[in-house]
Amino acid sequence: MRRLAVFFFVLLFFPLAGYAADNVTTFTLENGMDGVVIRDTRAPVVTHMVWYRIGAADEVPGKSGLAHLVEHLMFKGTKAYGPGELSRIVAANGGSENAFTSFDYTGYFQRVAADRLGLMMQLEADRMRGLILSKKDVTTERSVVLEERSTRTDDNPGALFSEQRNAALYLNSHYGIPVIGWRHEVEKLTREDALAFYHKYYAPNNAILVVAGDVDPAKVKAMAEKYYGPIAPSKGVKRRNRPSEPPQLAARRLFFSDARVSQPYVIRTYLAPERNAGAQKQAAALTMLAEVLGGNGINSVLGRALQLKQKIALDASAFYDGLSLDKTSFGVFVVPAKGVGLQQAEDAMDAVIAQFMKDGVDPAQLKRIKTQIRASQIYGRDSLQGLARKYGAALTSGLTVKDVQDWPDILQAVSADDIMAAAKMVFNRKQSVTGWLMRADNEAQK
Amino acid sequence: MRRLAVFFFVLLFFPLAGYAADNVTTFTLENGMDGVVIRDTRAPVVTHMVWYRIGAADEVPGKSGLAHLVEHLMFKGTKAYGPGELSRIVAANGGSENAFTSFDYTGYFQRVAADRLGLMMQLEADRMRGLILSKKDVTTERSVVLEERSTRTDDNPGALFSEQRNAALYLNSHYGIPVIGWRHEVEKLTREDALAFYHKYYAPNNAILVVAGDVDPAKVKAMAEKYYGPIAPSKGVKRRNRPSEPPQLAARRLFFSDARVSQPYVIRTYLAPERNAGAQKQAAALTMLAEVLGGNGINSVLGRALQLKQKIALDASAFYDGLSLDKTSFGVFVVPAKGVGLQQAEDAMDAVIAQFMKDGVDPAQLKRIKTQIRASQIYGRDSLQGLARKYGAALTSGLTVKDVQDWPDILQAVSADDIMAAAKMVFNRKQSVTGWLMRADNEAQK
Repeated sequence: MRRLAVFFFVLLFFPLAGYAADNVTTFTLENGMDGVVIRDTRAPVVTHMVWYRIGAADEVPGKSGLAHLVEHLMFKGTKAYGPGELSRIVAANGGSENAFTSFDYTGYFQRVAADRLGLMMQLEADRMRGLILSKKDVTTERSVVLEERSTRTDDNPGALFSEQRNAALYLNSHYGIPVIGWRHEVEKLTREDALAFYHKYYAPNNAILVVAGDVDPAKVKAMAEKYYGPIAPSKGVKRRNRPSEPPQLAARRLFFSDARVSQPYVIRTYLAPERNAGAQKQAAALTMLAEVLGGNGINSVLGRALQLKQKIALDASAFYDGLSLDKTSFGVFVVPAKGVGLQQAEDAMDAVIAQFMKDGVDPAQLKRIKTQIRASQIYGRDSLQGLARKYGAALTSGLTVKDVQDWPDILQAVSADDIMAAAKMVFNRKQSVTGWLMRADNEAQK
Repeated sequence: MRRLAVFFFVLLFFPLAGYAADNVTTFTLENGMDGVVIRDTRAPVVTHMVWYRIGAADEVPGKSGLAHLVEHLMFKGTKAYGPGELSRIVAANGGSENAFTSFDYTGYFQRVAADRLGLMMQLEADRMRGLILSKKDVTTERSVVLEERSTRTDDNPGALFSEQRNAALYLNSHYGIPVIGWRHEVEKLTREDALAFYHKYYAPNNAILVVAGDVDPAKVKAMAEKYYGPIAPSKGVKRRNRPSEPPQLAARRLFFSDARVSQPYVIRTYLAPERNAGAQKQAAALTMLAEVLGGNGINSVLGRALQLKQKIALDASAFYDGLSLDKTSFGVFVVPAKGVGLQQAEDAMDAVIAQFMKDGVDPAQLKRIKTQIRASQIYGRDSLQGLARKYGAALTSGLTVKDVQDWPDILQAVSADDIMAAAKMVFNRKQSVTGWLMRADNEAQK
């Protein structure tokens, strides 16, 4: 019945343009470029984003880090706008801008006064096909990326630990390869690699335009036709068909010790399903499970037991993000209090989870969580950029505008039984990696 | 000094054709096909092999099992010789034949009377470029491969265990993906996949002809020119550039339990260097280390301690095979005696290795092993097919004829110090996976 109701709702109020709760219009240009416009008239600003359906998990073997390197290189200039000029123009117009790369997407955005939208489109359309790269550009930017890797990953035992755990969790999926790339592979990326990747994947038929702000959707569409419309699609773009996981049949453990570790902890990630178009219920239940077990500190099942009652943990939590093109992970972790060993912390964590599987969900807690989620979703709309990002990430992760808009209600509809069924499904040790982050030589490596 | 001596030896006796200990001649055809002829006149037979420098580790992501499927499909027939005809002709001529796929190569061979060599070349040259595949051929053979996977892997907990351990050992290298392929990926392989792979990689410039037996090298070369010479090279063949391992920073453990397991055991594999062209010393030391620790049953360090003295193991061994294009593994394992748990077995194994690291190599044992190796190498020459395979595997794994011929002397030159240095290098728990194969619910999964 519910599904039918939603269907009518959409049909009645947004018969053509796809308007919905967030005031969203969608369109597709003839060259295959998708457009999403989120109208919000509260301030005369606009966030302009172009998302490409290409991320680190689409890289070919041996070229890890390429998607991210290309993101960096996108600021190197074109025939029309020289190196760094785009950034200077955005700044000169009072705007800010940046870019990001994940496993599933690469995105570029500017935030400017609403009347500068055309200029932003002009700049972004220009670098969609017109990028010029010298050998030196690539050498320089590769060094920048390697330095970024040093700072964020190599100098950070927690980040290295996470990298090694991901590599152990995914047996086949490229989510086991870091977005920033393995150092020895990044070092070998060439101008030819970057240009081949760019020419293949940077094209209107692989891109999604997201515009959020004080704009007229019809005008945005006309503007998109003007700036992006003339760009020819790329033939290299195909349906993303990435390696998926085989059956995972063996529980894994991983021990990472490093002299730089100041705070040891134990963390377990389980392979978990992601949100899929038209099928988000299980992911919604997992989202709620993470909240029940580990959200909001000592109000959660793990926090209350390990931090408040037993006082053996400084922190205890659970996490899950279903926004992913392929299978993702569900995690739990415990940071032991002083004098508490990792084995003791892990045993206590497992005992709490085992007890939870018997007790089930506390209805009062579930109600509280749902209220909090509803509130944070409403507050979330305050950020234009957050809104734009929500749609861009969803659409490059295989979801539709409707999936994004259905999500809040699907979350609210999750029952205690749904959560327990999801817990039973996901807590399969054979599909998990348990990791110990340890001070060097501080714990037995068993 | 030694290196120099070898150099002169080669220069004096095999200045052009590359003859050496095994009576080997080499040549390269104009289209890039390499030839190796091993003359052995003891019997009027010949082994004819064509090796392709393409294996499972060269597959693109998501297409695991493709190299092996193509091997199967190579028997489906051409315009000149219909389905199964090649096998019938070989049999009608009193010969035998088969094929094999590994991570690094795919090979085809026939063993026939020496005067049938031309016919074998004709058949093999014909299917190098002329394969015809119907959709049904692929569907049928895919079922055969899936059945093979059922029998060899899915119905065999030890094989599944090994598959999961490999996936955990290699963080980036494709050696973590099984040669036979993940079932869910094999199921989706298509005729188009097979033909694209075949046309790209099955070509003279990616092939090595190995002929062993009662033949005249000059005539073999002339025959190769006649049959293989006219085949045009493929442009798709490039230097193999496969993903290699990032730093491995965390010891891993893996627990596989299955109701079908009759004999539990513990096994640890360490990431290990492979034999490289002109640089085989470390691999030779690792080969000797495996022999010292685990070769020849109760005469080895592990066998003597765990089977003979402590009587806690039914078997205890070590293994290493340096013939590999990329980094490979060094392994140790213990099969516990009745009533002995896996933790006890593992602890005992580690204690023996720790003691060995203190004691070093027993000179008498090392001498004995060297004598045994020399003897087995001499016996090994009795098998024409073994000889041919030795060269084919080496040449498709990045080694040269000279490397193959140097190998016995390099092994003999390994000192006790070399072995201990290799042990110190390879026994790095951070680059290892320790696996427990358990009867279901029989051991704690910690």
